[in-house]
Amino acid sequence: MQYRIEKDTMGEVKVPADKLWGAQTERSRNNFKIGAPASMPLEIVYGFAYLKKAAAYTNCELGALPIEKRDLISQVCDEILEGKHDDQFPLVIWQTGSGTQSNMNVNEVIANRAHQIAGKTIGEGEKTLLPNDDVNKSQSSNDTFPTGMHIAAYKKIIEVTIPGVTQLRDTLKKKSDEFKNVVKIGRTHFMDATPLTIGQELSGYVSQLDHGLKALENTLPHMAELALGGTAVGTGLNTPKGYAKRVSEFIAQFTSLPFITAENKFEALAAHDAFVETHGALKQLAVSLNKIGNDIRMLASGPRSGIGELIIPANEPGSSIMPGKVNPTQCEALTMVCAQVMGNDVAIGVGGMQGHFELNVFKPVMASNLLQSAQLIGDACVSFDVHCAQGITPNQKRITELLNNSLMLVTALNTKIGYYKAAEIANTAHQNGTTLKHEAVALGYVTEEEFEEWVKPEDMVGSLK
Amino acid sequence: MQYRIEKDTMGEVKVPADKLWGAQTERSRNNFKIGAPASMPLEIVYGFAYLKKAAAYTNCELGALPIEKRDLISQVCDEILEGKHDDQFPLVIWQTGSGTQSNMNVNEVIANRAHQIAGKTIGEGEKTLLPNDDVNKSQSSNDTFPTGMHIAAYKKIIEVTIPGVTQLRDTLKKKSDEFKNVVKIGRTHFMDATPLTIGQELSGYVSQLDHGLKALENTLPHMAELALGGTAVGTGLNTPKGYAKRVSEFIAQFTSLPFITAENKFEALAAHDAFVETHGALKQLAVSLNKIGNDIRMLASGPRSGIGELIIPANEPGSSIMPGKVNPTQCEALTMVCAQVMGNDVAIGVGGMQGHFELNVFKPVMASNLLQSAQLIGDACVSFDVHCAQGITPNQKRITELLNNSLMLVTALNTKIGYYKAAEIANTAHQNGTTLKHEAVALGYVTEEEFEEWVKPEDMVGSLK
Amino acid sequence: MQYRIEKDTMGEVKVPADKLWGAQTERSRNNFKIGAPASMPLEIVYGFAYLKKAAAYTNCELGALPIEKRDLISQVCDEILEGKHDDQFPLVIWQTGSGTQSNMNVNEVIANRAHQIAGKTIGEGEKTLLPNDDVNKSQSSNDTFPTGMHIAAYKKIIEVTIPGVTQLRDTLKKKSDEFKNVVKIGRTHFMDATPLTIGQELSGYVSQLDHGLKALENTLPHMAELALGGTAVGTGLNTPKGYAKRVSEFIAQFTSLPFITAENKFEALAAHDAFVETHGALKQLAVSLNKIGNDIRMLASGPRSGIGELIIPANEPGSSIMPGKVNPTQCEALTMVCAQVMGNDVAIGVGGMQGHFELNVFKPVMASNLLQSAQLIGDACVSFDVHCAQGITPNQKRITELLNNSLMLVTALNTKIGYYKAAEIANTAHQNGTTLKHEAVALGYVTEEEFEEWVKPEDMVGSLK
Amino acid sequence: MQYRIEKDTMGEVKVPADKLWGAQTERSRNNFKIGAPASMPLEIVYGFAYLKKAAAYTNCELGALPIEKRDLISQVCDEILEGKHDDQFPLVIWQTGSGTQSNMNVNEVIANRAHQIAGKTIGEGEKTLLPNDDVNKSQSSNDTFPTGMHIAAYKKIIEVTIPGVTQLRDTLKKKSDEFKNVVKIGRTHFMDATPLTIGQELSGYVSQLDHGLKALENTLPHMAELALGGTAVGTGLNTPKGYAKRVSEFIAQFTSLPFITAENKFEALAAHDAFVETHGALKQLAVSLNKIGNDIRMLASGPRSGIGELIIPANEPGSSIMPGKVNPTQCEALTMVCAQVMGNDVAIGVGGMQGHFELNVFKPVMASNLLQSAQLIGDACVSFDVHCAQGITPNQKRITELLNNSLMLVTALNTKIGYYKAAEIANTAHQNGTTLKHEAVALGYVTEEEFEEWVKPEDMVGSLK
Repeated sequence: MQYRIEKDTMGEVKVPADKLWGAQTERSRNNFKIGAPASMPLEIVYGFAYLKKAAAYTNCELGALPIEKRDLISQVCDEILEGKHDDQFPLVIWQTGSGTQSNMNVNEVIANRAHQIAGKTIGEGEKTLLPNDDVNKSQSSNDTFPTGMHIAAYKKIIEVTIPGVTQLRDTLKKKSDEFKNVVKIGRTHFMDATPLTIGQELSGYVSQLDHGLKALENTLPHMAELALGGTAVGTGLNTPKGYAKRVSEFIAQFTSLPFITAENKFEALAAHDAFVETHGALKQLAVSLNKIGNDIRMLASGPRSGIGELIIPANEPGSSIMPGKVNPTQCEALTMVCAQVMGNDVAIGVGGMQGHFELNVFKPVMASNLLQSAQLIGDACVSFDVHCAQGITPNQKRITELLNNSLMLVTALNTKIGYYKAAEIANTAHQNGTTLKHEAVALGYVTEEEFEEWVKPEDMVGSLK
Repeated sequence: MQYRIEKDTMGEVKVPADKLWGAQTERSRNNFKIGAPASMPLEIVYGFAYLKKAAAYTNCELGALPIEKRDLISQVCDEILEGKHDDQFPLVIWQTGSGTQSNMNVNEVIANRAHQIAGKTIGEGEKTLLPNDDVNKSQSSNDTFPTGMHIAAYKKIIEVTIPGVTQLRDTLKKKSDEFKNVVKIGRTHFMDATPLTIGQELSGYVSQLDHGLKALENTLPHMAELALGGTAVGTGLNTPKGYAKRVSEFIAQFTSLPFITAENKFEALAAHDAFVETHGALKQLAVSLNKIGNDIRMLASGPRSGIGELIIPANEPGSSIMPGKVNPTQCEALTMVCAQVMGNDVAIGVGGMQGHFELNVFKPVMASNLLQSAQLIGDACVSFDVHCAQGITPNQKRITELLNNSLMLVTALNTKIGYYKAAEIANTAHQNGTTLKHEAVALGYVTEEEFEEWVKPEDMVGSLK
Repeated sequence: MQYRIEKDTMGEVKVPADKLWGAQTERSRNNFKIGAPASMPLEIVYGFAYLKKAAAYTNCELGALPIEKRDLISQVCDEILEGKHDDQFPLVIWQTGSGTQSNMNVNEVIANRAHQIAGKTIGEGEKTLLPNDDVNKSQSSNDTFPTGMHIAAYKKIIEVTIPGVTQLRDTLKKKSDEFKNVVKIGRTHFMDATPLTIGQELSGYVSQLDHGLKALENTLPHMAELALGGTAVGTGLNTPKGYAKRVSEFIAQFTSLPFITAENKFEALAAHDAFVETHGALKQLAVSLNKIGNDIRMLASGPRSGIGELIIPANEPGSSIMPGKVNPTQCEALTMVCAQVMGNDVAIGVGGMQGHFELNVFKPVMASNLLQSAQLIGDACVSFDVHCAQGITPNQKRITELLNNSLMLVTALNTKIGYYKAAEIANTAHQNGTTLKHEAVALGYVTEEEFEEWVKPEDMVGSLK
Repeated sequence: MQYRIEKDTMGEVKVPADKLWGAQTERSRNNFKIGAPASMPLEIVYGFAYLKKAAAYTNCELGALPIEKRDLISQVCDEILEGKHDDQFPLVIWQTGSGTQSNMNVNEVIANRAHQIAGKTIGEGEKTLLPNDDVNKSQSSNDTFPTGMHIAAYKKIIEVTIPGVTQLRDTLKKKSDEFKNVVKIGRTHFMDATPLTIGQELSGYVSQLDHGLKALENTLPHMAELALGGTAVGTGLNTPKGYAKRVSEFIAQFTSLPFITAENKFEALAAHDAFVETHGALKQLAVSLNKIGNDIRMLASGPRSGIGELIIPANEPGSSIMPGKVNPTQCEALTMVCAQVMGNDVAIGVGGMQGHFELNVFKPVMASNLLQSAQLIGDACVSFDVHCAQGITPNQKRITELLNNSLMLVTALNTKIGYYKAAEIANTAHQNGTTLKHEAVALGYVTEEEFEEWVKPEDMVGSLK
């Protein structure tokens, strides 16, 4: 491999010749060989691209950076956002807890790429841009990394999580409406209970997701607060007047998202409660989705020895020997995602509770866990929607069979023949393994006609939505 | 011990003669000897008292219960809320997951106590009230227990958690204002950094708690939704028309809290995402409080070999041998509470994700964990406030000493003599263990007067709040 | 209330006259009003009683304490262990993180009670024993509290957890043997699969518990290591020569448990990884028990619309209207316990990871969580065993019906008529809702006699145990 | 892109022409677009390669597979293990919870690659090997995936985790020995305490890691148990006699690791408590490492305003302006890893507790979390060792300064002049900000010579290791 020499304040470092990064990135590559390479999420790199561009515009507007440098920085940031330099960010999550080296990675790539754009060869001639003095102007790792985290997280929630969950929610709502008159046996404690409709059952899932989406949206104002402008410890040392507010406006403009400058920069550097807060809502969604996924696979269980009230799509060969064995694989993927999100919530909490003094140094681990959860929930909802929920149909024959067999319908006779006779009917049917109607007539308490008139499951499901 | 005989549908049970509970409570006592007795939180019993009274009023208003029965039920509920029957609720958390037996415990106590009020002897004469038919009218365990949970949780948050956190927040705000001009060295990565004021440092904590309180308040509308009226599976079977809405209005009236009937009763029985949501906010507060408690004990560390910038009250004898050893015991109690809340969050999540079909049967464990967290956070904040935060004072001598010693102040010379000379000064001072001023003058880069004019920490703390 | 005056190095304190505790206990009561009073587990107090007695014996043997004082201390410790002073320990978990005040609580109670035994009135006359100089001789809170924790935890595991789990394990093993020939349909992905016996199914649970018990036992050697003798920071300052080893021998003798002195006292004070380790095994048991409890309630679901292969005891009235509705309440109590243990594991981990320098100050929260888990698992296993597992019986009629209906049995024909014809039979039966035999004969691939000879579920369950 | 047509029982699928996988892999790629592609760990694929080869050898030995097929399968497995086909496994963690499709992925790749080796073109001519009938012979996804998981996990623990932790442990032990006579001030509650040596302090860390390694090793026998031979539900249907035992022997031979056949195959499919168990030990190590990492960064804090007793290597430029600011970046990477492991532990527990009936369907999420933790802990320990621990040196000047300043040394005078005079000395020194010696002499209690003879920190550190 070809190398070139890059320098920083600690001396010279050999860097692969075809790479845009510089000395500090290379040091980090060598000093943190922990886990898979390049594990730092690209979404955070893109968050940096937005903020570096916004900082350049703000610095320029406030007289701290020439317009030529602004435009060079901006051009490289746009290239990064187009995905042209994805292979230039080789660092891992498990580095400095402030993400310092990922900030420097971005600074170095921007400076070296700008040098190329200016028609020069990296490592030769006067530097077009200085990574620290130009690209990082009015910034610190301590305020840029949290800003990049917030941008990445907010975008992911808006672009992946909310649309994904909403898509599934809408399908469940459609199915709830479609099956609003399909009366089935209810189950509590896993035991037969009074009836309800499939529409009602599904409406509970819709309500869960509606509440979860509302909870998630409630967390976004905190996530919209950006640390940028706080620099090293939150005081904003070395920033031009008006910088913090203006740079957030540029970020809001470039991302079309409602970012604002954090009302308190000390919190914004020293704590990442916004991540704890937003991930709390993601965890709530995971809890809901686990319930939904579990219910659906149990309702679809069988085909002969389970509940079998729902039919779900067959997407892959189950067993080559057993037709009708449709494994609820989308439920399994979904609930595995939920298990992961439960774990990620603890990782984020543990990181969040350990900020010290002016800086929380668990930034990369908190950011990467939230981004993973947000992606997985969104993706899993879409996958579950397309490959399972949209195809759910009631197994009417089975539903009717179970409903008619149920001893619980005897409740309807209470008001006609009294509780004790009703109980006697149910008891006898249970012992004999017969139907309520059979025993009700045999015991002489009702006629067959009366039974059929009085015991109507569809009258027992109420008028609640 | 004296016993009397109580009956239920399974037969006779011997109950201690001096107790108001009945057969089903006694069965549960015998069948669930798990952990300490009477672990079911009394707050939930009180929640039941509110809802039983509200149900009696609603049933009466809707023509389903005579006014005399309403008033008897109401009278006993008031007695329960006055704490007169606290020893009548012996059941444990680890019972039926729907809390059925605690519902029956309340029903039985109300019925037997009403019998006494009616001037009769328990177990003798015609029953004044029937536990199931009167006290439990238009109700099911499946909708009463979650209603009791929500009432208990909402009240605890409003009465204990929010006031406790707010009290600490207000003290920290007051201290932040009081010490807004006390300039001190900043620390990032546990390493010396540029200065800030104590006021700024504390303002970060205030901002954390403000965001945490906001997050907690965001969860309350979901917690305000009550399941009552859903009965067995959410359909509202066996409730009079208009019951659900009206009973919630009575509960709101009796508690003076903004309870409403849940928009979806199926969710309200089958899932307790509201508990996951609210506890998520409690966990966020725990994360914040852990950071605050940790910082304060580290800033108060010493007295000779630590940081020692803050002085905190001495509340108990530390070591009998070592004066000045003030252990940060309130920080320790607070951070232990935070550890507990982190754990409770997982217990609640695990319970929440496992609801099945029409009923979540992890109700008592979810409720008790949330109530514990809400109580502990509120109490710990008050304790920390009264016995620690209110007494925090800066150790001005130590702060000044550390600040003046800091090599980081050299930053201020950058714009006067350039980065490289400034770095040389700092480097030399670090190697020689001397002060910046000494080396700056010795190197001939500035005069003593210039140094004192240019290097002013108070000019480095910005104008950010 | 009557008070007397007690003194410590900070001055005078009013203490309830009828209580044995002294000034430092009373200060703690006032300074830590967090959560329910007296939450510090009595088991830890008993652990202290063992170690105080052992320290007295060791100090005496090594010439540091007169035999009269030894015997007085010993006598009070025995009284404490007999439960005579349970109401003398009013402190909470949420105190100093080293448990200092609970150590002093024990010291004060022993000293004051010895004063009574000596025939004097508390607060009058020369002190019979000094709390610090006599009762706490050669000790520090920093080594006594962890020693008390270890004694309490070890005893709880040995006396409650292991016997409870073993009792359930033995019942499951007995049932596994009893039903070793009951062939039933298997289920994977909640879907019908090839058959196995109930005995085989239950043997999996037995194996889980066997592995869990082994894992728990593996952790006991670490838990057997005692910190006593490390005193303030682990160096053993102020202990007589030979003290650490000897005091552990006395504790082993008094408790009849294999305690030894910790090989490294610095670890024993500064970290409580032994609690993390042991609770990890408790969590494993919770994971196993949750699986077992879940399976059993699903296998017992019904009676008409579920799986219904197992019949479990009816312990309480289910619904008054629906005979046969036996709610799996023991499964619910058990799985709620499992949820709690999952949470406690995180609380303990969070406490464990935050030790600082020479002392972990999350001792009480770690200890109380482990003790709760150990108690709950043991109790819940016994409850589940007595009220559920012992009464499990197969619903043979249902099992046979489901087995005979299963399409999966077609697998047995593969080697006779080939895969494709077998699949055609299964497919046709699935589409027509008929039996395999019916379609096999109708398609002309086998005779009825051949089918009955070749398709025998009992031949498909292997010879694996 | 070029495609070819592959078929399975559901019909035809277009597969990229240059890929070795078949129809079922391609279906999974399309049906599970969740998170990053190819997230299924390659270690599990390699685990499959071992077991497929072992199954081929066993089948051949037992007469169920021709030797030519055995050798073809074996050859491809060896190629996979050499890393030649890493790009042929595109599936994600979030698929079927039994990992069925990853099993089929391996089967398909082996079959197609064998076809190439046989000199044929994929998709043309008679199939050389059938994925199901030959490669998957005597196997099921249900027993292969857990076997692959166990192989991958065991290997990772042995090859990465244990060596990494041991390397760090050995360095700490070496440092502990090296600095066994460096006396320094102790700290409890973050407050100054009696002295100990650096050697003693570090020995506590060594003891933690020794206990952690022991705990990890204790879990390996459970992890060594392999499910292979259980096939679909644990009964071993369709396996030749003696298969289970023999196939484990081949795996043990091929991996040189002590794998054995699981004593109970029902547990081995339906529960993954071995993963819960082993990860419990990894979590314990994370708890220990977090403590160690935290201590070291606090002991190295400063350089002027912290504790500063340890000097750690400077690996990267800290601030360009502040010499001496060495950020403890390795501590940060390490503690972030610990936070992740804490979270992974919950994900694994949640997955483990949800097995249902004959199959746990959270296999991929459990496996991937454990593999990540095992890798991260091993890597982070090596990184921390090489870039931090090996370079730790005491800052003797600072240590001596803090030690001599300490008021805690007064303890040594207790036995000479009594507790009260000693306390008076310490109190006066604390109030006046002076030294103990100064006040001791000034108060007239000792001479300067006596003080120097009696107050020797090196005599206070005991003889404990």
